[in-house]
Amino acid sequence: MQYPEPIAKLIDSFMKLPGIGPKTAVRLAFYVLSMKEDDVLDFAKALVNAKRNLTHCSICGNITDQDPCSICMDKHRDESLICVVQDPKDVIAMEKMKEFRGKYHVLHGAISPMDGIGPEDINIADLIKRLQDDQVKEIILATNPNIEGEATAMYISRLVKPSGIRITRIAHGLPVGGDLEYADEVTLSRALEGRREL
Amino acid sequence: MQYPEPIAKLIDSFMKLPGIGPKTAVRLAFYVLSMKEDDVLDFAKALVNAKRNLTHCSICGNITDQDPCSICMDKHRDESLICVVQDPKDVIAMEKMKEFRGKYHVLHGAISPMDGIGPEDINIADLIKRLQDDQVKEIILATNPNIEGEATAMYISRLVKPSGIRITRIAHGLPVGGDLEYADEVTLSRALEGRREL
Repeated sequence: MQYPEPIAKLIDSFMKLPGIGPKTAVRLAFYVLSMKEDDVLDFAKALVNAKRNLTHCSICGNITDQDPCSICMDKHRDESLICVVQDPKDVIAMEKMKEFRGKYHVLHGAISPMDGIGPEDINIADLIKRLQDDQVKEIILATNPNIEGEATAMYISRLVKPSGIRITRIAHGLPVGGDLEYADEVTLSRALEGRREL
Repeated sequence: MQYPEPIAKLIDSFMKLPGIGPKTAVRLAFYVLSMKEDDVLDFAKALVNAKRNLTHCSICGNITDQDPCSICMDKHRDESLICVVQDPKDVIAMEKMKEFRGKYHVLHGAISPMDGIGPEDINIADLIKRLQDDQVKEIILATNPNIEGEATAMYISRLVKPSGIRITRIAHGLPVGGDLEYADEVTLSRALEGRREL
């Protein structure tokens, strides 16, 4: 005997999500049966709405339900400062800090020759367009501290440098609360390299 | 900045599922954005259909999309044998074995005085009703091998015994592929107790 068809379909849908295998999918599907009908309807609506109503901001590329996004529309933010990140989730991480008052640019990926992702496959062209108007004074490269992120930062810095705009990279070093003993050599060497006068 | 509302709602919905915390919910929600629209619609439909179209079989209490369920309707199965389980998932586990050709009865729980669940809170009354017609020759108690499952099995056996119907309990012992060294004492003592002539 198989599962009744409605639940088999739900199990299949759950299994398409990352990190959810057959056993978890069964558990989640049976849990849905025990949920209140309203909650299930809300879940279904949220799925469809998220997929249909979210677009990419035409200015910064961030995920948004209105174009341009609320950050790009915010008059109180510093137009002269653009923080370049790989992913919309990185914008959320930066915003949680509550210290950065500039704007963002979301690349949706990083240059990765191994995966066949070149500069033209990520949102770099739009960034260069944004630099045409004279307002931008500094670009902060906040791509991930790994090979792809570094390569992307390097590529963008070479592209932008001739324009005379200041271009910076976020610091690499020991994470706060970390332990020197357990730091890997590369991080430690970067931390040493980036030491500052006290 | 918060997440745009459509994705915040989706994150909330994912977080209502068991074992899914805030970080996983964010990851799943962003994954949904990258899914094909058809897959997302199928997911939403599957949720609603599973919740709306599944009911409990009026005979055995199993989850089904048609009442009575396909097992209860199956003329090739042995009407005289009823396997009592706690949960619809247990029916699937039994059916995977492909050896049992009787019918089932799903209790939807087990007696657990600690949680305030008494015999009247689970599907025992319907089981007793099914015993009224003379076809049933044996009841196999396949409730879980833990305190609640044992208590439930004991309760049902005492209830049914006066009727003269044969009542059995699935065997406790070492799981196949297990290791004697790592077996707990209770399992080992049950394995010894249930030893059979070779």
